[in-house]
Amino acid sequence: MSDTLLSSASKEVIIGFDRPFVIIGERINPTGRKLLAEEMKQGDFSRVEADAVAQVEAGAQMLDVNAGIPLADEPAILAQAIKLVQSVTDVPICIDSSIVEALESGLSVYEGKALVNSVTGEDEQMERVLPLVAKYGAAVVAISNDETGISEDPDVRFEVAKKIVQRAADHGIPHSDVVVDPLVMPIGAINSSGKQVMHLVRRLHDELDVNTTCGASNVSFGLPNRNGINSAFLTMAIAAGMTSAITSPLHAEVMQAVLGADVMMGHDPDCRNWIRKYREPATTGEGGRAGRRRRRSSP
Amino acid sequence: MSDTLLSSASKEVIIGFDRPFVIIGERINPTGRKLLAEEMKQGDFSRVEADAVAQVEAGAQMLDVNAGIPLADEPAILAQAIKLVQSVTDVPICIDSSIVEALESGLSVYEGKALVNSVTGEDEQMERVLPLVAKYGAAVVAISNDETGISEDPDVRFEVAKKIVQRAADHGIPHSDVVVDPLVMPIGAINSSGKQVMHLVRRLHDELDVNTTCGASNVSFGLPNRNGINSAFLTMAIAAGMTSAITSPLHAEVMQAVLGADVMMGHDPDCRNWIRKYREPATTGEGGRAGRRRRRSSP
Repeated sequence: MSDTLLSSASKEVIIGFDRPFVIIGERINPTGRKLLAEEMKQGDFSRVEADAVAQVEAGAQMLDVNAGIPLADEPAILAQAIKLVQSVTDVPICIDSSIVEALESGLSVYEGKALVNSVTGEDEQMERVLPLVAKYGAAVVAISNDETGISEDPDVRFEVAKKIVQRAADHGIPHSDVVVDPLVMPIGAINSSGKQVMHLVRRLHDELDVNTTCGASNVSFGLPNRNGINSAFLTMAIAAGMTSAITSPLHAEVMQAVLGADVMMGHDPDCRNWIRKYREPATTGEGGRAGRRRRRSSP
Repeated sequence: MSDTLLSSASKEVIIGFDRPFVIIGERINPTGRKLLAEEMKQGDFSRVEADAVAQVEAGAQMLDVNAGIPLADEPAILAQAIKLVQSVTDVPICIDSSIVEALESGLSVYEGKALVNSVTGEDEQMERVLPLVAKYGAAVVAISNDETGISEDPDVRFEVAKKIVQRAADHGIPHSDVVVDPLVMPIGAINSSGKQVMHLVRRLHDELDVNTTCGASNVSFGLPNRNGINSAFLTMAIAAGMTSAITSPLHAEVMQAVLGADVMMGHDPDCRNWIRKYREPATTGEGGRAGRRRRRSSP
């Protein structure tokens, strides 16, 4: 029964079994967003601010912040972005970089207990990231690949996750502060990847007693109607025990799948969240769609 | 590894593990449809015909046919409806009545191997329905309640299902011709009913080796945005091993959830069904919705 507590200066969020699923908004990431990358490099954080506010309004309980821009001073930009996001929202942040110096820079300005994204099972990487996580009292996303790459065998990925959890413990980080990403393969390429992930999430839940997260949209890579596949994936992953995902809360269809899955798992007592969101078609999510439809058909 | 084979005069459908989920169209049922009830009673089957064609076009692999009209000659009307549906579609039929004489009347005119809906675990009912199922070489839906009613404990419901499977065997009906309905409680009233059903479906799959079905919309009774809950339910039920449902294929959202679940389970090889349905928005299911929207906004 693992609870991973994250916090901002004023707010706590718990990722845990038997709790509502936690959506970590993925939008603040310049990868593949040329305009955002250019703006962040120039010190213009207006789009970061707008993305932060919009994602929280759409239901993200946490925000991922990434500043991976080629040939830019990533540590400095990441720290700026984090300070900005913390000034306009109160949700905890997932500090996202493949550069250890940027992670440290972000952690040094962060107010609260952050989620560090990420550490892999590679020895050198573990020995650089885990001491930082321990120093700042943070939690960490553990990616289940190592020097040999990503195994197609979910049980090999389980062993990598187990190794990271054990190494984290060596650094004084409890398993409740390790959130494992089981790695989701595109199902268009590997038809068995859905069942693989469910098997792996169940083992991580039952045997390692850890929370889990994933980049949810990778599963639908290359397929049409990606939100439909992402919705099916998240629903099944939640049934298997997945407790959070780094994804966009701006897709109403995907958010509905997550809220519906919370209801089905008994994680939405008396269906209160569901009823609040959907009971009044004129003013809630349903109404939003109807409203857009009306606007579209009027000239 | 149970396969339940059903057939019409010219077509076979198999409900089975590791196969695409089977949707049994629920629309041909006068319960709660006053106009349809009145028309069927008067011998007007035009709406039955339209409902049959529309459901098959929308993706139903089988059709449920029910003629439960108060103060009407149900055995005669059910037989007429079945003959009509068999003349306009080629999918196998689920013959649905609580009156044993109506089931026999329907079976006597049916061409192919039907699914009889249903038998409960009540002794008297089993002793009347199972000989009929055996006589006509049909398959049967087994509802997991008995003289004591519907237990809230899924393990009690499992024992009822097991009793029916055993009794069917006594009548020469193999377990592969028994499709168990685990009974889904409204989740708005019983928050644990989702986890209950998943637990029960898994036990039915693993221990009794039987296929399963359900009236999928009961789960959302009393809640807003019912299709959203039904979609989450079906996705999770399929992950747990459910292999068919009696529901409406006319809700695009629910059909998408089922097709997405087939992809995630690896039951849609190379995602062919998914890609065929969603790749060209102008001419497929997506386009169908757009088409209706356009029609709706034109006077």
